Amino acid sequence: MKLGDLGEGGLIRHIRERFGAKAGELPVGIGDDAAVIDIPRGYSLVFCSDLVAENSHFIRDLHPPSSISYKAIAANVSDVAAMGGIATHFLISLATPPDLDWTWIEDFFRGVESACQQFEIALVGGDSSASDRIFVDVSMIGRVKAGQAVRRSDAKVGDTLYVTGKLGSSALGFERLKAGDTEDPAVKRHLHPEPRYKVGPAVVGQAHAMIDVSDGFSTDLTHILEESKVSARIYKDRLPAWPGAADHHVLHGGEEYELIIAGRADLPGMIEGIPLTPVGEIIESAMENQAFLIDGTQESVLPPRGWQHFE
Amino acid sequence: MKLGDLGEGGLIRHIRERFGAKAGELPVGIGDDAAVIDIPRGYSLVFCSDLVAENSHFIRDLHPPSSISYKAIAANVSDVAAMGGIATHFLISLATPPDLDWTWIEDFFRGVESACQQFEIALVGGDSSASDRIFVDVSMIGRVKAGQAVRRSDAKVGDTLYVTGKLGSSALGFERLKAGDTEDPAVKRHLHPEPRYKVGPAVVGQAHAMIDVSDGFSTDLTHILEESKVSARIYKDRLPAWPGAADHHVLHGGEEYELIIAGRADLPGMIEGIPLTPVGEIIESAMENQAFLIDGTQESVLPPRGWQHFE
Repeated sequence: MKLGDLGEGGLIRHIRERFGAKAGELPVGIGDDAAVIDIPRGYSLVFCSDLVAENSHFIRDLHPPSSISYKAIAANVSDVAAMGGIATHFLISLATPPDLDWTWIEDFFRGVESACQQFEIALVGGDSSASDRIFVDVSMIGRVKAGQAVRRSDAKVGDTLYVTGKLGSSALGFERLKAGDTEDPAVKRHLHPEPRYKVGPAVVGQAHAMIDVSDGFSTDLTHILEESKVSARIYKDRLPAWPGAADHHVLHGGEEYELIIAGRADLPGMIEGIPLTPVGEIIESAMENQAFLIDGTQESVLPPRGWQHFE
Repeated sequence: MKLGDLGEGGLIRHIRERFGAKAGELPVGIGDDAAVIDIPRGYSLVFCSDLVAENSHFIRDLHPPSSISYKAIAANVSDVAAMGGIATHFLISLATPPDLDWTWIEDFFRGVESACQQFEIALVGGDSSASDRIFVDVSMIGRVKAGQAVRRSDAKVGDTLYVTGKLGSSALGFERLKAGDTEDPAVKRHLHPEPRYKVGPAVVGQAHAMIDVSDGFSTDLTHILEESKVSARIYKDRLPAWPGAADHHVLHGGEEYELIIAGRADLPGMIEGIPLTPVGEIIESAMENQAFLIDGTQESVLPPRGWQHFE
């Protein structure tokens, strides 16, 4: 059966049956012009989106549909966590060819389901369209305690820089997936990343600045430096590398969804079961905003060589 | 100059310079992992998205970029209004070919700017990617008085059905645009629709059910009927037709962004300067949920023949 046999009405009915119950706890859930949601008092709204385009973010013959949807949602959960927030509700806009097999759609929504369970979030609506390329956009809302959002721009000179988990798994996993390996732990991590959705909210009040590693450690660290108008020193031997990951995976690989945190030197080594590794410090430099990589006795500039679209 | 010459960083800088000031009034605006927004007390959040795909919603050689962005935003403003809400903040996810000319991007954001001014809303973030097809997804939040959202599902037997403005302009305008006409008022309306963003919130407390005409009068009316488990009688000679529009434009044309409102018989004939025309009434029929079109002495079923994706 093809998607075109069911039509847009059939697709929306399928989604409502599968996801309507949870969204039904809302003032207005799936199936109206818009969802209506109450934000508890004392919280601000967090709002972000992440787009996933065929051949840029995934390859149709390589990435399982359940991974495509799961990753698009996980990327947003990670963004909300990187503000110190908790993701709660999301929309999916999905463009697909009408002759796409229905099993693709079913597997895609299996990934949505597992993300909903994993992150305790609810699908509340979205949009769909025909297109000859697959395109997915997820927009997410969440909540953060009012006045407590952790920005990129408040890293202070003297702050310790921390990284959660390990770096390099996703880029390494993508290489191994392209080589035909589907069972390697790095491949599994590439297909089902683990955003640090409990760590982000847990460090509110302790973290001065925070960002998630979506484009690569070097690039996302540079975002903190540029926004905070500071520089950083990173000790290469302290970077927590995924087993088997090469330097370029660790330093520049995207879609990691680990967190980079700038804060006081006394943050715990483990938060919500996730290791937090001190990897360097924030240093003064209002003009240059660069990261310096210390490798033994050598010091070099760490340029932002992570993922860049349009290049 | 091509988009690829500036890269994603250049695109984001351009957007921040152009839209950052307004978003700067927020706790966190453009340029972080997510935007952070305060929702005033006594209001619920309204949340929706609309996806625009090349060759499904627009043709690159036919539709000016400023119209593509304006319409994607207007569609969301219309959805929020159809809940009785007021749109406030939005995200844009944009996928484009890297070799797209920069003038295309500039004109696209001119459309964003004019929508921001027209609807008093602020761009607060989004995402971008390379893609060989252009995709735009806009996600919008807004507010509605708590407990006052106007759903599709609460039309009551005996309600009068109203339509704002006139029907048929967008479908007629699209035909004339394809024929080379760029000055006809219907063409202008097709390129720059006027969502009834002031009417929606104004009828809160008076409207029992409401929807905007995005897929076509017949299809969107049927959504109200199915959700409310009722039927309707529509008087063809009362339908406010755009001058020159044929029956199929009026009955089934999409992207109108007029509102269909079910409510008491005494709603005013003009709300916020927009005419409100009574076109029929809600009748009992828990099982069938059909619209019947009365044309002189003839009565026929009005099937939902509006826009359908994947067919």
